[in-house]
Amino acid sequence: MSDHEQRGDRTDARVLALCGGVGGAKLALGLYRTLSSGRLTVAINTGDDFEHLGLHISPDIDTVTYTLAGLNDTERGWGLAEESWQFMSALRGLGGEAWFQLGDRDLATHVLRTMRMKAGETLSQVTSGFASRLGIDATLIPMSDGAVRTTVRTNEGALPFQRYFVEHQCKPQVRAIEFEGVLEARPHPKLLDALGNPELTAIVICPSNPYLSVDPMLALPGMREALRRAKAPVIAVSPIVGGEAIKGPTAKIMRELDLPVTIRSVADHYKGLIDGLIVDNVDAAEASSLDVRVGVTGAVMTSLEDRDRLARTVVDFARSFKAGNGG
Amino acid sequence: MSDHEQRGDRTDARVLALCGGVGGAKLALGLYRTLSSGRLTVAINTGDDFEHLGLHISPDIDTVTYTLAGLNDTERGWGLAEESWQFMSALRGLGGEAWFQLGDRDLATHVLRTMRMKAGETLSQVTSGFASRLGIDATLIPMSDGAVRTTVRTNEGALPFQRYFVEHQCKPQVRAIEFEGVLEARPHPKLLDALGNPELTAIVICPSNPYLSVDPMLALPGMREALRRAKAPVIAVSPIVGGEAIKGPTAKIMRELDLPVTIRSVADHYKGLIDGLIVDNVDAAEASSLDVRVGVTGAVMTSLEDRDRLARTVVDFARSFKAGNGG
Repeated sequence: MSDHEQRGDRTDARVLALCGGVGGAKLALGLYRTLSSGRLTVAINTGDDFEHLGLHISPDIDTVTYTLAGLNDTERGWGLAEESWQFMSALRGLGGEAWFQLGDRDLATHVLRTMRMKAGETLSQVTSGFASRLGIDATLIPMSDGAVRTTVRTNEGALPFQRYFVEHQCKPQVRAIEFEGVLEARPHPKLLDALGNPELTAIVICPSNPYLSVDPMLALPGMREALRRAKAPVIAVSPIVGGEAIKGPTAKIMRELDLPVTIRSVADHYKGLIDGLIVDNVDAAEASSLDVRVGVTGAVMTSLEDRDRLARTVVDFARSFKAGNGG
Repeated sequence: MSDHEQRGDRTDARVLALCGGVGGAKLALGLYRTLSSGRLTVAINTGDDFEHLGLHISPDIDTVTYTLAGLNDTERGWGLAEESWQFMSALRGLGGEAWFQLGDRDLATHVLRTMRMKAGETLSQVTSGFASRLGIDATLIPMSDGAVRTTVRTNEGALPFQRYFVEHQCKPQVRAIEFEGVLEARPHPKLLDALGNPELTAIVICPSNPYLSVDPMLALPGMREALRRAKAPVIAVSPIVGGEAIKGPTAKIMRELDLPVTIRSVADHYKGLIDGLIVDNVDAAEASSLDVRVGVTGAVMTSLEDRDRLARTVVDFARSFKAGNGG
């Protein structure tokens, strides 16, 4: 299917997606492919950002950017396609810290971002510059230009997010999750603008980890109020399917926080904030007992078609609120 | 030949080499292979250093380090062997400045150095750390830990060295060469210690570009005096052979500065500083008319054996001064 034909199929809905890394980026890609030109805004978690080897690394922003640009590695599941690891090999030879994998191509992103931020650009300016350069016809914004750093309190002590996630491979038991700097940070003005846009069709909370990837956004001062005031319905897509997380440590963390690994826990977590929840067919029975309107569909995104179909379902579900009893 | 056998052949001379990049590093390697363990100190030009993409790059230090570690690319003539260029490709995709080639493996050096210097290490600490990590059994020191930046005044205006050398490929006509910051810099204390070491056999000015690579060192406050006071003979190896430079822009620059491209110009340039000059056999006739003691030998280093042979000749030449009419 050519770009032109594809575009003919697109819906002119306007969507704001709140998104973490890999899991969320799948739906962001579906929305990107489904909406008309320029109708998608993605606000991206920056709680996972960190400084490593003197470089400013924004893993979730990069995942979304690479995914929407069609440059991501779909087999490995993270990073860039056609990546190589010569830098890492030389770094080890020189005795540098090698626990965090930086691909040779990926490194260009970090080096250039760090240089531009040191020269005075904001993270959001760098992010939109890269998106534009890579031909992405959507608005990508960090949740905030302020520094928010997710810290995971575990049985082995407090760990900066990437140390927990990459170096310790999520093995320590989580006791609490904190977002350093979040009270001094502000939601990005463009995120607030998007939330207040009367033409917005839907605010979509992507199926990212609610505790690690979405909560940093919700913890930004004024963010919950702005979500509640928004005219558009807020639709979350459950990252929990059939009692397990589709990927990543979400289920493990829920158990460690004494939360049942169910769609009810997801609904409770977003209670008062969301108008609707999209869950997978396998959770249809439990769905009927929730206190929130639920859309039941195939919510596991394996193929590109899955992403597109789920994106359309989310948009259609959001539109049903406008017409009737939601918003 | 095993390392052990090789070592058996070595001379216990103690040498301080003053060295620029590729041309000088060839002789530094010969000296490294010829001297007993730990007897070589190389003081390296840092006038070519610059900041690029937020990284501190020290081209001559890296060339010497890679060469002595046996990691240099001998076909390309610069940088690391088995290098790849994925970073550059991605950098161009993001719209980054791509006039200076940074290999994926080489990048580890720059990233790690920049990080360590930001954390408070000096350039010399980083340099000796890398050398030690790469198993180099010689003392490598930047000529200074102060920032000296070579600027080339040309018919197209003043150009920082790397802009002149790489971006403009030495095409502009040189009118003057300046070393910014040199009057505020100091020769590295270990360089001064080496110069004053009574056990030193020779101070060797490698066949680097006298105007671009050696002059920054000679311009450091106190450096000429320290060279004159040194007990060891100062031996320069001519980078000019048969009226041409063996490599690089030396001959072109000499013409632009109205200097004959001859060994006499080299001798005049180092007049009052050197005790002896090594020239190639093709220059034997002219050599006899110079006002300095001259050693005539094969001074073009193509093979590894050439490097070793020239190194031995330089050491033997230096020893002849101790025995007789030099020093």
